[in-house]
Amino acid sequence: MITITDINVLDSKDPLKDKKQGFSIPPGLVYLDGNSLGALPSGVQNAMTTAVETEWGKDLISSWNTHNWIDLPLSVGDKIGAIIGAAPGQVVCCDSISVNLVKVLSAALALRPGRSVILSQHDNFPTDLYMAEGLTALLGESRCRLKTVDADDIVEEINESVAVVMLTHVNFRTGALHDMAKLTEAAHRVGALVVWDLAHSAGALPLALDELNVDFAVGCGYKYLNGGPGAPAFIYAARKHLANIHQPICGWMGHANPFAFEPGYQPAKDIKVFLAGTPNILSMKALDAALDAFDNVDMNTLRQKSLALSDTFLRCIQQDPCLSQLQCVSPVYHKERGSQLAFRHPHAYAIVQALIEDKVVADFRAPDLVRFGFTPLYLSYEDIWTAADRLSEVMASEKYLAPRFQTRNKVT
Amino acid sequence: MITITDINVLDSKDPLKDKKQGFSIPPGLVYLDGNSLGALPSGVQNAMTTAVETEWGKDLISSWNTHNWIDLPLSVGDKIGAIIGAAPGQVVCCDSISVNLVKVLSAALALRPGRSVILSQHDNFPTDLYMAEGLTALLGESRCRLKTVDADDIVEEINESVAVVMLTHVNFRTGALHDMAKLTEAAHRVGALVVWDLAHSAGALPLALDELNVDFAVGCGYKYLNGGPGAPAFIYAARKHLANIHQPICGWMGHANPFAFEPGYQPAKDIKVFLAGTPNILSMKALDAALDAFDNVDMNTLRQKSLALSDTFLRCIQQDPCLSQLQCVSPVYHKERGSQLAFRHPHAYAIVQALIEDKVVADFRAPDLVRFGFTPLYLSYEDIWTAADRLSEVMASEKYLAPRFQTRNKVT
Repeated sequence: MITITDINVLDSKDPLKDKKQGFSIPPGLVYLDGNSLGALPSGVQNAMTTAVETEWGKDLISSWNTHNWIDLPLSVGDKIGAIIGAAPGQVVCCDSISVNLVKVLSAALALRPGRSVILSQHDNFPTDLYMAEGLTALLGESRCRLKTVDADDIVEEINESVAVVMLTHVNFRTGALHDMAKLTEAAHRVGALVVWDLAHSAGALPLALDELNVDFAVGCGYKYLNGGPGAPAFIYAARKHLANIHQPICGWMGHANPFAFEPGYQPAKDIKVFLAGTPNILSMKALDAALDAFDNVDMNTLRQKSLALSDTFLRCIQQDPCLSQLQCVSPVYHKERGSQLAFRHPHAYAIVQALIEDKVVADFRAPDLVRFGFTPLYLSYEDIWTAADRLSEVMASEKYLAPRFQTRNKVT
Repeated sequence: MITITDINVLDSKDPLKDKKQGFSIPPGLVYLDGNSLGALPSGVQNAMTTAVETEWGKDLISSWNTHNWIDLPLSVGDKIGAIIGAAPGQVVCCDSISVNLVKVLSAALALRPGRSVILSQHDNFPTDLYMAEGLTALLGESRCRLKTVDADDIVEEINESVAVVMLTHVNFRTGALHDMAKLTEAAHRVGALVVWDLAHSAGALPLALDELNVDFAVGCGYKYLNGGPGAPAFIYAARKHLANIHQPICGWMGHANPFAFEPGYQPAKDIKVFLAGTPNILSMKALDAALDAFDNVDMNTLRQKSLALSDTFLRCIQQDPCLSQLQCVSPVYHKERGSQLAFRHPHAYAIVQALIEDKVVADFRAPDLVRFGFTPLYLSYEDIWTAADRLSEVMASEKYLAPRFQTRNKVT
């Protein structure tokens, strides 16, 4: 039986406990939705004011040089690289995951002529599958074919027809975590490449892209990296591939010499080859400032806390008879789980709405999941205790059955 | 001979003179580079603070509903639509021009099966040509082929092999303005579609996309729309095409039902079909606030002022013997000119640097152009007079020959 005394001990020994002060979180709110939109790091507002008033407002166009806006996609990329196990010069911040998938999937197909299959899993995040479908529609099935299989069947389906294995490291619904090392190796064994989607991994757990010989990865800036709503995404591409990238979203910023304004496209021979249009400076400045929250954070320490937070939540749920109707669909073993837990319940949508009224923010994933994200940088063990306690009240009182919780929002 | 007395009369009679107060421009600076990066509208900083501190910081994930973030691409799109002659529901704010060109060119090719030519002009903005090249590399020449011709030859080159005519309305170097009505009609006469790039038109002159039966257009938010560095771009698509759009950057936000998280992509049957990833809210909020500068602005009045400003500048140049070495490469006739003037000079780069030191911001375009943009919302006739005066000093003194003006910046 876990008690509030245990919780207080966990908090007092938490090596990351001071990090919470670096975030602006409304008093009394327990925010378990950092896997959808990360909370606001305190330094962002000042960075934005500087970017808007000083850089844009006063220094205007010269800021591309004087404030080095032009290199921001690379400098922010390298900051992200340090969090995901990538040496400098292999990560660039740009566009969205959807757009970036078109780039890396095209690049991967071009690197594997004669192979056409993009192998993925049925319950990958839909946009990842849509992008592969979009490429198939464009290229025809002889050159690009999306094949999806069950998660358990991936390894055995990796064969020599496969050009690229495209997987999301942590499943967006269940939080199930793939074995990146094993799957990357299985792909390479038959000459296939890998594209990892790190949407629910970057900033949530240690990654070692270089060490595992990952070919390509994409990820977003607005979940565990706390870059703000719709923050720019990123691309990782292993250095060995950079001189041979051919991708169709070949805008001027990816040109070897963008300001020569030459008529023919010549791809940059470095990570800039994945840039397309003018980088979105204001949003990238927010992400840049947000990433400072990771200064001096050891990702293994962060992972330990993430697992301890979710274990604590699971124990609170399991010891409370009122919560027995919530069926956990997330893996229990640490090595199989990301930084979230999901529970099935027929009234999942209404439960989430009722919890929000009680100042615990989780989210709903269709058709019947309540999803809780655990962000080690700004959650305490007491937050977890409070969340379980309020969830218990919601379930015991059945307040979620009230009609006001049934009305669907546009975004769920 | 134009005199400062004439200038003062022009300013006193300027119907847009009060608009300048709505922008934050450094004292003493004459900013003639709004066609590269628009100046900061005063309302943006407050809008950003609200977006960051209140919407993101306090209301967090619920803001997608409570602050209607989810509809921002459409509401900002409609605001832009009002400026470019598009009825609501046909403009969406998203991504960059480069990315958006992939979408609209693909959509146009899909609407014209059996035709493969994208017709453009040699000196179109390079990224536009690169995107067509990128599609060609992906699809093969049998399905997509970029053909570029001289500006004067476009009409005669529009024939039944052409799927889509892709042109930039105002040339980025010379400011030459295409006859949108004539070229759109010439394309339609042989069953071809048109894609207009409005980078240097939107917010600079009146447009009538609906009236001229334009099929598609793209444009950027950071030039005359003043949305900030790298602001999100936009797509216009005529209502008649919206139910039949097939484009490859088919991310979840363009799905008919994005939050169902369905495995197969079903395109939205409205302008949202051009959305891909999660919209970039912070940057879009800046653009949203910036667009308020166009409230109650009659675009014909704005155009008249734009032309009067550039005419005034031309007259100042022509009456000053010190400026006779500057060769104007922009069209002199109003109906052939956008909102800028460009002058050729072998020391163009150094002249621009010297002018900047004297607080007149113009820009350089390779290999030998000095480019001046005229933004009617925040320029006075006195600004124009001052710019010509300081340019005269720079040329008379030959100060631009000093070595400090020769050092090339990363961004020119």
